[in-house]
Amino acid sequence: MSLRHPERDQIRIESVLSALGNPVRLAVIRVLDAGGEHNCTSVLGIVGVPAKSTMTHHWRVLRDSGVIWQQPSGRENLLSLRREDLDARYPGLLDAILAGVVGDEALEASRTPLPSAT
Amino acid sequence: MSLRHPERDQIRIESVLSALGNPVRLAVIRVLDAGGEHNCTSVLGIVGVPAKSTMTHHWRVLRDSGVIWQQPSGRENLLSLRREDLDARYPGLLDAILAGVVGDEALEASRTPLPSAT
Repeated sequence: MSLRHPERDQIRIESVLSALGNPVRLAVIRVLDAGGEHNCTSVLGIVGVPAKSTMTHHWRVLRDSGVIWQQPSGRENLLSLRREDLDARYPGLLDAILAGVVGDEALEASRTPLPSAT
Repeated sequence: MSLRHPERDQIRIESVLSALGNPVRLAVIRVLDAGGEHNCTSVLGIVGVPAKSTMTHHWRVLRDSGVIWQQPSGRENLLSLRREDLDARYPGLLDAILAGVVGDEALEASRTPLPSAT
């Protein structure tokens, strides 16, 4: 059975922002944006979230807001970023967000004290 | 007493997105982005939210995430968008979001059936 996804025209900016206003879900879209074929288990491994049950909620939020496609394939769901739809509806938004995540990370890293040499 | 705001470097993308993932708060930043001096009451009037108490929560979310300045002035709080900080940390993000709100509105309007001429 295939899962319900909004059409491109049914996507709304507040739902996209709300879906992406979460560190785990931001980590997921970074993985998907880097390309390659991913299913829920493989993304879970990269993002490093231990509980599969926690992710069920995150997949639903990302899918319902129109950020990802989640297509059943055998026993798994294949995941992909709806970049074409998001870029068409909100030009520059996804790139600004992904760049923001990288920028935040660089800022955090620059603040982390180096381990002492003892 | 002045309210607590994050420094520019303390702003995080997930908090900004989460703060803006809400139609009332998106309406608020549109008002503030259009310029002019605003206090809570004047924004409330434009956005059309009836309960002042509901807004207390929204102001806090916008302030804590680093999206707005909320500065006490007499009996009121003056509000302004932290555009300089947001543009410095996340180039293009705010413009993409504001354009998205306008785009969504245009899409909704194009779908609303015209009133019948009877």
